[in-house]
Amino acid sequence: MKPIYIPKRDFDRVRHIDRQRAWRARLFADMCRINTLYMIQTAGSGHIGSSFSSLDMATWIYLHELSLGDGIEHAYFSSKGHDCPGLYSVLMACGLLSFDLIHGLRRLDHLPGHPDVGTPGIVANTGSLGMGISKAKGMVHADRLQGQNGRRVFVMLGDGELQEGQIWESLASAVYSGMWEITAIVDRNRIQSDTWVDLTSPQGSIEDRFRACGWRVESVDGHDFTALESVFAAVAEEREVPQVIIAETRKGNGVEKFVHTVAPSEDIPYAYHSGALSQVDYDHALRELRERVVSLFAEAGAEAPQFLTGPGKEPVVSAVNIQRLLPAYEKSLVELGDEIEEVVVLDADLKYDCGLGAFANRFPERFFECGIAEQDMVSRAGAMALKGLLPVVHSFACFLTTRANENIYNNATERSRIIYTGWLAGLIPAAPGHSHQGVRDIAALTGIPGLDLVAPSCVAEIPMALNYAAKVTSGSTYLRMTSMPTSVPYALPESYVFTRGRGCELVSGSDVVLTAYGPIMLAQAFKAAELLAKDGILAKVMNMPWLNVIDEGWLKKQTEGATCVVTIDDHYVDGGQGCRIAASLIRSGLSFERGVHLLGVNEIPACGQPQEVLEHHRLDGASIASVVKKVVKGA
Amino acid sequence: MKPIYIPKRDFDRVRHIDRQRAWRARLFADMCRINTLYMIQTAGSGHIGSSFSSLDMATWIYLHELSLGDGIEHAYFSSKGHDCPGLYSVLMACGLLSFDLIHGLRRLDHLPGHPDVGTPGIVANTGSLGMGISKAKGMVHADRLQGQNGRRVFVMLGDGELQEGQIWESLASAVYSGMWEITAIVDRNRIQSDTWVDLTSPQGSIEDRFRACGWRVESVDGHDFTALESVFAAVAEEREVPQVIIAETRKGNGVEKFVHTVAPSEDIPYAYHSGALSQVDYDHALRELRERVVSLFAEAGAEAPQFLTGPGKEPVVSAVNIQRLLPAYEKSLVELGDEIEEVVVLDADLKYDCGLGAFANRFPERFFECGIAEQDMVSRAGAMALKGLLPVVHSFACFLTTRANENIYNNATERSRIIYTGWLAGLIPAAPGHSHQGVRDIAALTGIPGLDLVAPSCVAEIPMALNYAAKVTSGSTYLRMTSMPTSVPYALPESYVFTRGRGCELVSGSDVVLTAYGPIMLAQAFKAAELLAKDGILAKVMNMPWLNVIDEGWLKKQTEGATCVVTIDDHYVDGGQGCRIAASLIRSGLSFERGVHLLGVNEIPACGQPQEVLEHHRLDGASIASVVKKVVKGA
Repeated sequence: MKPIYIPKRDFDRVRHIDRQRAWRARLFADMCRINTLYMIQTAGSGHIGSSFSSLDMATWIYLHELSLGDGIEHAYFSSKGHDCPGLYSVLMACGLLSFDLIHGLRRLDHLPGHPDVGTPGIVANTGSLGMGISKAKGMVHADRLQGQNGRRVFVMLGDGELQEGQIWESLASAVYSGMWEITAIVDRNRIQSDTWVDLTSPQGSIEDRFRACGWRVESVDGHDFTALESVFAAVAEEREVPQVIIAETRKGNGVEKFVHTVAPSEDIPYAYHSGALSQVDYDHALRELRERVVSLFAEAGAEAPQFLTGPGKEPVVSAVNIQRLLPAYEKSLVELGDEIEEVVVLDADLKYDCGLGAFANRFPERFFECGIAEQDMVSRAGAMALKGLLPVVHSFACFLTTRANENIYNNATERSRIIYTGWLAGLIPAAPGHSHQGVRDIAALTGIPGLDLVAPSCVAEIPMALNYAAKVTSGSTYLRMTSMPTSVPYALPESYVFTRGRGCELVSGSDVVLTAYGPIMLAQAFKAAELLAKDGILAKVMNMPWLNVIDEGWLKKQTEGATCVVTIDDHYVDGGQGCRIAASLIRSGLSFERGVHLLGVNEIPACGQPQEVLEHHRLDGASIASVVKKVVKGA
Repeated sequence: MKPIYIPKRDFDRVRHIDRQRAWRARLFADMCRINTLYMIQTAGSGHIGSSFSSLDMATWIYLHELSLGDGIEHAYFSSKGHDCPGLYSVLMACGLLSFDLIHGLRRLDHLPGHPDVGTPGIVANTGSLGMGISKAKGMVHADRLQGQNGRRVFVMLGDGELQEGQIWESLASAVYSGMWEITAIVDRNRIQSDTWVDLTSPQGSIEDRFRACGWRVESVDGHDFTALESVFAAVAEEREVPQVIIAETRKGNGVEKFVHTVAPSEDIPYAYHSGALSQVDYDHALRELRERVVSLFAEAGAEAPQFLTGPGKEPVVSAVNIQRLLPAYEKSLVELGDEIEEVVVLDADLKYDCGLGAFANRFPERFFECGIAEQDMVSRAGAMALKGLLPVVHSFACFLTTRANENIYNNATERSRIIYTGWLAGLIPAAPGHSHQGVRDIAALTGIPGLDLVAPSCVAEIPMALNYAAKVTSGSTYLRMTSMPTSVPYALPESYVFTRGRGCELVSGSDVVLTAYGPIMLAQAFKAAELLAKDGILAKVMNMPWLNVIDEGWLKKQTEGATCVVTIDDHYVDGGQGCRIAASLIRSGLSFERGVHLLGVNEIPACGQPQEVLEHHRLDGASIASVVKKVVKGA
C-alpha cells in the first residue's frame, strides 16, 4: 500500500484521553512510528532502527519532561542524530514543527537528513557522532552565564556512539563543573550500523565508566513508560552531578520484524539500520503498528485515528549505464589481498557501506573492525604500516578526513605507506545532509606531504587507482569514492594509461575545456557538453582523477588554445581541485581569452534529492552549460 | 657554569658496579638527568619537568624490561613525547643512539624536539597527544600477524594526556583483542602544561576508568626502583588483558627546586614545563645532581665520573625591533572582554602560551579551561555561540585545526560566530619539531563556509583583526598567530585600513611583487627586497593577512604590470595562500612575463634553530632573493 500517516488532530486527541500518562505515551509513540515510516518511505531513505529504538524515550521527554511547570523550557537533542525521522515525528505531533513538513524528509528546503538548527525545535547540529555531551556542557555554561539557572539539557546518545573518544573526553569536566543540569540517555539497543556492538567493539562496563568519571548512573527499560516516568522523576531531584540513564532498548522496537532476535554471538548484518523498506516490509510493519494503534483507541472508547496518504513520491528518473563503485572496489580489494599478503583492512563500523564484506570473509585475520573510533583506527594503521604491513583504512570521507585529521598527518610524518579510502564523498547523495556530505575532504587532506588524493571516475578506474596506491607509490594515497550508483555516459579511452598527475579526455572539443572528477560531476560535465554542442560550442571534457597532483606540462598541452577553462569540483571551490588547476595554468604561463572559471560548492551544501541539489548549487549539466555559454559569449 | 655532561663510558661502568639493580638504576637515572639538562641548555629549549618525571621509569625499562632473555626485543615509546630529552639521554647512555648527538638537541639533522622514527631507537612519532595506546595496538596487531608472538610494548602516557579523548577511545578494544602484550604507564605527576591537573580538568578515578574498560591496574611509586622492579615483574606474568601501571611521580623529580610543592588547590603556574633554565637554576640543579652522583660513585668505591663541557651554544644573532604578538593579543583580548560582555574565552591547557592569563584573572567566570581536550572545547564553544555568546577558542594551531577539525566544521554548519585563535602557527619556531609546527592549518581549515582566516603581520594589526572578528563579520574567524618573538623591520602604512580580502604594501617596487603574511615570512620578504635592490631589482613587498579571501579587483591593481609575482607561504605550498593568489590572478585575466611562483614548505618541516630551518627550506631572505633573481633574469 501507499505510505500513510496520521494527522496532527489525532495526536491532540490522544493527549486528552483519560488514561495514565504511560498509556497515552505508548500510543503516541506508536503513532509517531507510523509517521516516521511514512517520512522514510516518502524520502526513500532514513534510519528506521535508531528512530524506533529511541522513540519511546523521545516521546516521553517531549510530553512530560521539557515543561515541568517551573517556567523554564528545558532542552532536548539527539547527539547521534540518526534518529531524527523519529524525532521529527514527535516534534510535529507536539506542534513544535510544521506538520506539512511530514511530506518533505530529506528534500530541499524541508527536513534535513540529520538535525540542523535551521529546523524549528532542533537546538544543535548533530549526526557527526560524539559531540553531544560537549554541546550540552556549552549550553549549560551559557545558561549559567546568562542567568537561565536550572535549565536542564537532555541529550540522547547511541551505544555505538560511545565508541567515539569525544564522549569520554567530555565526561569528567561536567562533574568538575557540577553540571547536574545534564541528563544523558544512552539508547543501548546493542546494535550499531553493521552488527552487534559486542561483536564490533565492546566498550567494557559503560555504567562503571560513567561512574568512574563521577556521573550518577541510572538504568531503565527504554520501552517501559512506567519505568521511564520513575527514572526521570529520580534524576530530576539530582542537584550535584550530571546523570546518565542507561536505557535498555531494542533497535527497531515497535515492529517485531525490525528487532534483531539472533544471539549477540552471531554476526548477522542488521537489515533496518538505514534505507527505506521494501513494499513487503512496509506493508507488514504498517499492519502491525496500525492494529495496535487502532486497538488502543478502541480500548479507550475513542474513535480510530485517520490514516492518510500523501502526495506520493517523485517519479524516478531513468538513467543509462548505472555504475556501482562499491562492488567493484570490494572485488578489487580482495584481489589485492590475494596478491599482497601484507594488505590489512581497517574499518570504522561501515563494513557494508565501504565494500569490505568480501575481504573480511576471505581474510578474517587481516580484517580489523575498529568500531566508530576513527582516530584510534588511523593511529593503529600508522603503527601497522611502520611494521611493514599495508593498511587500507575505511570510513565515510566526511568522518575519516576530519575526525582523524591530526592522526593522518602524524602517520604521514612517519613516511610510511597507507591507503585511506573515503566513501560517500562528494555532494551526492545529499539526502543525509551536511554532516555526511564529503565536500571538504580534499581541503582537509591538503598539505600532507606524500599523500596523493585520487578520485576514480568509474568502475574501470578503481583497480588502476588501487594498483597505484599499493604498488607504484611509496607514499600514501587517499581514494575518494562515490557511493551513489551513478549513470556513467562515458568510457575511459582504450589507450588510457593511469599516470600520476594526468587524466584523460572523455569528450573532445576545441572551444572550451571542462575538467571534473568522479562519476557524479563527470556525468554533469558530459551532459553540459551535449547541451553546448547544440549551441555550436565544442567542449572538451577531461577526467582529472588526481586531486592534488598536476602534471603541469601535460595540462598545458591539454588546455592550450582553448577559449576558456572551466573546472568543476564535487567539493567546496575553496580548497578543491579547481584552485590547483588554475594555479597550475598561470604557473605554466597560460592565459585564456575567456578566462578560467571555478565551479563547485560555495555554501553549506543543501540536503535533498540528487537532481534538486545539483540544480540548487548550479552544478547540474544544464546550469554548467549555461555558465559556459555566458562565458564564451562574453555576456 | 657551562652546561656539562657525563660521557658514555661512565654509564658503562655503572652497569658493572656490584650493587642491586635498583641502586644502579637510581644512579644511572640521575646521570641521565645531568645529560638531559645539558641537551636542553644547549638547545635553549625542551621539557625538563616531564623528562625528569618519567626518567626513572624509562631508565628501569631500558635497563631491565626490553631484553628479558627470551630472545625478543620488546618495545618502548613515549606517547606524550614531551619527555624525549630524557628518553634520548637514556638511549644514548644505553648505546642505542649515537652519543655525539648529545650536542644536537633540536638542531637540524640531529635530535628532533619530539620523537621521530628517523631517530634510532624511536619507534613512533609522538608529541601529538593521545595516540600512544592506539599505536601500541597497531604494533601488536602487526606482531601477531607477522609471527612475532609475545613481543611486548610499553607505552608512557602523561596524566594530563589522559584528558585527550583518543586515550579512552583506544582502551576497550585492547581488551576485546586480549592484548596482554601492552603495558601502559601513566606518569601521574599531577601537573600539566599550565598547572595542577586537578585545577585544569580532573579526570575522575583513572584507576576505575581503566578497570571499567577491562584493563589490569597496578599502582607504584614511579621513583622507587625497588617498587618498579616488583610491579614490572607482576605485569610480566599477565597473559590475558592489557595492563596499566599508574605511577605516582613528581614533575621535575631529581632536583627539589623543580618539584611543585604548593598544595594542589593553589593555582601557581609550573615554571619548569618547557624552556631552558636560567643560569642560576642550572647551576643550582647541577650542584644537586652532581653531588648525589659523585657520592653514589664514592659509596660504591668507584672513581667519580667525568663531567665534560661541550662545544657551546651558537652565538645569538642580534635583531632589531623585536615584536611579541603574545602580550599584545593578551591586552587586546582583555579590552574586548571589557567592551563585549558576551565574549568568553576557552583554552586547552595553554593559558600562558596563548596569552590568556590577563583575561582569566579579570573575567574568571568567562574563562573556561577545558584541559587537553580540543574536540570537547570546540563543541562546547559551538553550543555557547548558538546561545548568543562570542567564544574565543585557543590552542596551538597544529592541534586546534586538526584534532578538532570535524568539530569546527560542525560549528560552521550552525552558522554561528566563533573566533578560533591558533598560536605557534608557521614554520618557526621549528625547535619543537613537526608535531608542533603549524604549517597546514590554512589547508585544514579550508572549505569551511563562513570562516575567514587572518594572520596579523605585527602587533599593530592584532586589534584590527580582533575587531573584525568580533564586530564586523557575522561569520567565524581563525586568527593565525606567531608565537616566536620576531624582528619586524617594517611598519603598516599610516593610511592602512584593515579591509576584508585586501592587504597593504610594506615596500614599494615596480619589478616584482612579493606576497607574504605574518611577521616571520614578511621579515624574510623584506630582507629579500633589500638584497634584490642591490642588484637593481625593485621588489614590492605586500602584507596579505587574509589567507582564504582575496579581493580580486584590488589584487589585480596591485600586481598589474609586474614582471612576476612570487608568493611566500609560512605553510605548505599545497593548500596555502599562494595557490589562492595564483588562482585569483588567472581569474582576473592577468599574466606575467616571468610568471607566478609559489614558495613555501614542500616537505615535512625540519626541526632546528630558526635561521638554519629557514635556510633548509629556502625560505630565508637570501634564498628568496636568489630565486627571484633567477626568475627575473630568466636564468
